Amino acid sequence: MAIATHQNKEQHVLSKNALDILQDLVKDELVAVNHTIIDRMQSPVGLIPQLAGHLISSGGKRLRPVLTLLCSHLCGYQGTRHISLAACVEFIHTATLLHDDVVDDSSLRRGSESANALWGNQASVLVGDYLFSKAFQIMVEDGSLRILDILSSASAIIAEGEVRQLANANNLNTAEEDCLEVITAKTATLFSAACEVGAVVAEQPTHICRALAKFGLNFGVGFQLIDDAIDYGGAQATIGKTVGDDFREGKVTLPVLLAYQRSNKEERSLWEKTIEQGNVTEGDLTCAIRLMDKYKVLQDVRNKAKEYVATACKELEVFTEGQERNALIDAARFCTTRAF
Amino acid sequence: MAIATHQNKEQHVLSKNALDILQDLVKDELVAVNHTIIDRMQSPVGLIPQLAGHLISSGGKRLRPVLTLLCSHLCGYQGTRHISLAACVEFIHTATLLHDDVVDDSSLRRGSESANALWGNQASVLVGDYLFSKAFQIMVEDGSLRILDILSSASAIIAEGEVRQLANANNLNTAEEDCLEVITAKTATLFSAACEVGAVVAEQPTHICRALAKFGLNFGVGFQLIDDAIDYGGAQATIGKTVGDDFREGKVTLPVLLAYQRSNKEERSLWEKTIEQGNVTEGDLTCAIRLMDKYKVLQDVRNKAKEYVATACKELEVFTEGQERNALIDAARFCTTRAF
Repeated sequence: MAIATHQNKEQHVLSKNALDILQDLVKDELVAVNHTIIDRMQSPVGLIPQLAGHLISSGGKRLRPVLTLLCSHLCGYQGTRHISLAACVEFIHTATLLHDDVVDDSSLRRGSESANALWGNQASVLVGDYLFSKAFQIMVEDGSLRILDILSSASAIIAEGEVRQLANANNLNTAEEDCLEVITAKTATLFSAACEVGAVVAEQPTHICRALAKFGLNFGVGFQLIDDAIDYGGAQATIGKTVGDDFREGKVTLPVLLAYQRSNKEERSLWEKTIEQGNVTEGDLTCAIRLMDKYKVLQDVRNKAKEYVATACKELEVFTEGQERNALIDAARFCTTRAF
Repeated sequence: MAIATHQNKEQHVLSKNALDILQDLVKDELVAVNHTIIDRMQSPVGLIPQLAGHLISSGGKRLRPVLTLLCSHLCGYQGTRHISLAACVEFIHTATLLHDDVVDDSSLRRGSESANALWGNQASVLVGDYLFSKAFQIMVEDGSLRILDILSSASAIIAEGEVRQLANANNLNTAEEDCLEVITAKTATLFSAACEVGAVVAEQPTHICRALAKFGLNFGVGFQLIDDAIDYGGAQATIGKTVGDDFREGKVTLPVLLAYQRSNKEERSLWEKTIEQGNVTEGDLTCAIRLMDKYKVLQDVRNKAKEYVATACKELEVFTEGQERNALIDAARFCTTRAF
């Protein structure tokens, strides 16, 4: 497939482990974030730490809290507030994952059985609410109304984006712009907030806060575009979710939209049968992937992701070169080449 | 049944319309709260105002925002902040109702089809998240960290209580104390927060804020005890939810717990079959209600509710007598006699 070639070429230029390097730079603080997370999800109601712990300890990349930590460093922050704020960001992310899995009825998350598969949808909805409330409690303790504003606005935009995605489901006439707006809302907004919080905690001037917010936003769009491509191009064992999940759920992601638009009349019937009518039978996913290959759809999605990441990296030019800046740039670029 | 007699006696003493009188006292402000609610639930994603509007306009009593408004008056508040804060309280309440109906798989809410029955569980989860986030955005605009603290803590306690209730489901060995703690968490905490916010916005000293918080907490427990009793003693048309819902869901509420504890060995098998094993067949609800009648369970639950309400009303003694104080006392007392 086109992607494989593309990807191999990239891996000579970029480090394979750019995300690991990112994590390494804030290793000790990430341990502190994890302690805060575990500490703050405790409850006399045993099901809460059990369920939340399952998801939180199941090997997520902690990309969003890492962004908060690293952005605060990039801004020269020396305090400790970024630890609990990074935990907040992860709590909000975890709450949305729990609710997402209920909405999508997913059985796998990060390669393990999802929380709703193990404990039921009811518990996932309620524990999600609990984590979300806890995130706000932690922010209130921190005491910055500006940060509360950033993260409550982000949460509203995320939920709005999820509802929009639900409303677009099965609709092959969704506009490409609509599709990108959903991605921006449901993924990029939290990336953006995570980065901006790092600047705000370091009391940076507006243009710096805005630059990091824009970096996060564009990085987030690129990240999600790749995620949507991977649903048609990854292997289940490495991506840790079920390949073809989006397909089976009738999600109109950019790969589907482009493939549908480029398909001839005969080929379109596959998309109409599966995505529109929700009638997915054996072999349909293979056919869908073949059409994406024929029309170089995943390649184009990946290229679009690269454009967003390039825009993201440009925002970091307000900072002088250094370890943190380079690590952020490498990580963002690496994400556009990842196959997992 | 015992309750009917009890109730008729009470209605001579208390106004039938104590809740209406409460609403009347803040009529104009309640109109402003409704405008704020409608205004703030707007979104370009049509499903959000559609679904939220269905629930919000379906004739809820607005008891919680009314408490915020009236408590602020009781404290002599003259400003306008209480309007948007009352809307916040209603948003949080509506979000929990949306999620509750998903968790309980309810088909009726306030006498109409529930949102999840009309738009599906997925939309209900996500729109609940949206309203919850919006509530926090409104609080951030208001700018009081103290109020953010009260309502984020309340939200966490509510979610924790809901998880606990889920964990207790089908368990007839739940302790009575556990059962009361669930009620306190899932209902009374928001009553308490709604009242306390009224005092905080009026910049009252700690003992006044605490008195109103305690009034709300005890009122809320009383209110929920009656709600749980009504599930076995109301008529579907008047209570606006399906009679026997709790029974079919295997919810271990205080009426069930008391009836089970007082039942003889033979009678206990009914509770074990229905509540524990979830095997509810025709005639079971009638038998359950008959047992509650035999053991005067609903009468006792109603008396317990009266005790909580008496404690609540005692807290209002810090205020001088007047229209607002009397209306709050009447409304709280009225709730223990309501049959809807």
